[in-house]
Amino acid sequence: MAPIIIIGSGLCGTLMALRMAQKGYQVDVYEKRPDMRNANIGSGRSINLALSDRGLSGLEMVGLREKALELVIPMKGRLIHDLKGNQQFFSYSGRQGEVINSISRKGLNILLMDEAEKTGKIRFFFRHECSDVDFDQGNAIVKNLDTNRETTISGEVILGTDGAFSAVRQAMMRQSGALRFQYSQSFLDTGYKELTIPASDEGGFRLEKNALHIWPREGFMLIALPNLDKSFTVTLFLPFEGDYSFEKLKSDEEIESFFKTWFPTAYQHMPDLLQDFRDNPASSLCTVKCFPWQVGGKVALMGDAAHAVVPFYGQGMNASFEDCVVLDECMDKYPGDWQKILKNYEEKRKVNGDAIGDLAVDNFYEMKAATADPVFVLKRRIELDLEQNFPDYFSKYSMVTFREDLPYKTAMDQGRLQDSVLMDYARTIYPGQEWNREDVYRLVKM
Amino acid sequence: MAPIIIIGSGLCGTLMALRMAQKGYQVDVYEKRPDMRNANIGSGRSINLALSDRGLSGLEMVGLREKALELVIPMKGRLIHDLKGNQQFFSYSGRQGEVINSISRKGLNILLMDEAEKTGKIRFFFRHECSDVDFDQGNAIVKNLDTNRETTISGEVILGTDGAFSAVRQAMMRQSGALRFQYSQSFLDTGYKELTIPASDEGGFRLEKNALHIWPREGFMLIALPNLDKSFTVTLFLPFEGDYSFEKLKSDEEIESFFKTWFPTAYQHMPDLLQDFRDNPASSLCTVKCFPWQVGGKVALMGDAAHAVVPFYGQGMNASFEDCVVLDECMDKYPGDWQKILKNYEEKRKVNGDAIGDLAVDNFYEMKAATADPVFVLKRRIELDLEQNFPDYFSKYSMVTFREDLPYKTAMDQGRLQDSVLMDYARTIYPGQEWNREDVYRLVKM
Repeated sequence: MAPIIIIGSGLCGTLMALRMAQKGYQVDVYEKRPDMRNANIGSGRSINLALSDRGLSGLEMVGLREKALELVIPMKGRLIHDLKGNQQFFSYSGRQGEVINSISRKGLNILLMDEAEKTGKIRFFFRHECSDVDFDQGNAIVKNLDTNRETTISGEVILGTDGAFSAVRQAMMRQSGALRFQYSQSFLDTGYKELTIPASDEGGFRLEKNALHIWPREGFMLIALPNLDKSFTVTLFLPFEGDYSFEKLKSDEEIESFFKTWFPTAYQHMPDLLQDFRDNPASSLCTVKCFPWQVGGKVALMGDAAHAVVPFYGQGMNASFEDCVVLDECMDKYPGDWQKILKNYEEKRKVNGDAIGDLAVDNFYEMKAATADPVFVLKRRIELDLEQNFPDYFSKYSMVTFREDLPYKTAMDQGRLQDSVLMDYARTIYPGQEWNREDVYRLVKM
Repeated sequence: MAPIIIIGSGLCGTLMALRMAQKGYQVDVYEKRPDMRNANIGSGRSINLALSDRGLSGLEMVGLREKALELVIPMKGRLIHDLKGNQQFFSYSGRQGEVINSISRKGLNILLMDEAEKTGKIRFFFRHECSDVDFDQGNAIVKNLDTNRETTISGEVILGTDGAFSAVRQAMMRQSGALRFQYSQSFLDTGYKELTIPASDEGGFRLEKNALHIWPREGFMLIALPNLDKSFTVTLFLPFEGDYSFEKLKSDEEIESFFKTWFPTAYQHMPDLLQDFRDNPASSLCTVKCFPWQVGGKVALMGDAAHAVVPFYGQGMNASFEDCVVLDECMDKYPGDWQKILKNYEEKRKVNGDAIGDLAVDNFYEMKAATADPVFVLKRRIELDLEQNFPDYFSKYSMVTFREDLPYKTAMDQGRLQDSVLMDYARTIYPGQEWNREDVYRLVKM
């Protein structure tokens, strides 16, 4: 039988390759970058990621849940740092054990690659770039970047797991008229730059370890996620242009003064700030939606290639892994019938890929502004209280993050409704006044 | 001084070239197709177009209004053909002289090209395809399709007037991250195919000459626009898939039976139906929105390249010509300051380009379905009555089509509001009952 072709050996492609091998397929994976295990290269954008329940389901599927959990640092909630240096902790859930996990993108990817190779059924072709796809023939053209030679490859099916700037998707774009290819890419005005809080001189964490730290400042914000080496990866989210923006941070003085003014409690832990700031790019943040996700039962998009999302829900990898779980289910449902498998996968996932894209943009506004808004803070307290007292109440965040049994679209629709009810209620409560738990519960369950 | 570079010698590019020459610039126009004046080729999609007031303003600007009007057949309204063969005429306006004009795309393009060459300041380079744009340098790369040689060209400014699949816009897409290029393309499920009603054997028009004919059938429709040679260009708008769709029209019998059943009063005038149906493609219909429209005061998009629209408002060419009028105004406002000129042009036009895109999709639903709906028919009668009796009342259609003093966005916002008020009112009128003109006027002016 012809092999399964996978374009892109990132997290999504490697997980899917491994699963395909477990199902008995031969798999050829083509990756334009060198092997990240040998080369001292970055693994693409963002150094660490938040692994949560949907992602864990994907790892469970291939039997790697426990091994992956050895690589994580659990984060129990958001630790909010205000301008005065006060800290407020907001648990992610009112329930025990519902945490998200900081994990190194590269560490997890390497775990997946190593396990994939152990199957003996998967070949990785590094420095092979997909330059085009022939949808009629079901072929891909890949170029060996060392020899510049192009080869036409064909397989049982071609899966494009090649990320936000997917070459497979671009090939669909070139056939826009014939495929009636619906496509949108939407950039935020805000960009991001990765920085570091290193381990302390004594070799410990400089901030609380089991939290996702946020310094929300309305128009912009700083966040930090813990790493195994006791450093934190810090990300500055800041508009590209305007009064407070990357364009205004050129000189050392401007950069330092900005951090001293707005993030003094982070700044004191960032000895390499200026160097990091110069070395690392200010990158853009984009949401991509498209349709179709598959052509003729021969070619399909998965992960960021199908639904690039902004990082504010920590769901990018989790959504991609869930794509793999759903495709796996479709393969079980329609054994060997790729027309039906891919059509069914597309039908199940398209609406949910779009939903997590929208949810992530929502959360951008929530994280940078709402976490500093007293009504929002009260609403969040009420919600945690509901979660602690009513086992059948789940916040939008909980539904998205911890309820892998609920599709993203359901979590979004129900969560937005709850949020609006709770915000309305929170506005009626005077400062210091207690809320009525039973009343609120009845309201949100109406 | 360096020449103005224009990519694309369609209607928009040639009009702009002519205007630039009149302002004293040297202009180089690059076009990937051969010269349509020498070659027996199509001029792109759609054979004839509806020229209305915004388009006429563009022609007025270059002194070609009268010459263009010699090439048109005025259409005073929509002539609706129902299934039983009844005809109902709906004037486009309650006011005298407010008509739209059927004109040959090729005829008008040739008029513009001939006038452009007469200036002695414009060079056309045919069979030269733009393959890339360097936005930092402000250069374009064009490839001579006869020699396959690529040349880098630079000019005062580069204008991309190269249509819905614009190469200049694609070059912006390739710089998506750096430009934060917002982009969406949205296809309708419906496609179109061009057909013909030839002149009668006696050499006359087979249908009423001064009308735009519509055979609305809810899920699909046929339209016909008159040509100077007494033929009509007929367009079938039909879904690609489904019960009534292009995929269901394969055999001669299927095609003939479909036309006999649904369009008997058109079918009898279409002796070449089967030949036309086989020869002409079923093409797709796409709306494109993007931003920015210009980069660094060096490169700008105009016409379909910036805002491809579906054809249902007959405004594609008119919107493109209005782009030229606005760019001309900006050049007068900021002489020689291309940064300001292009920024100002973009600011004024982006919102209006998007508005006409949305209006055209609205009108798709109105044309194929609403014209067969009794409430809509009554609403349209009330509206014409308002236009005849209140000089300050303008329907949405009139504002879009005849009020070149109003931006599309204003026409859309005000027009949608009026439509919803009038539809609500029309629903309250029993069949045969008279409406109260003064009441309605007060309602829509509230």
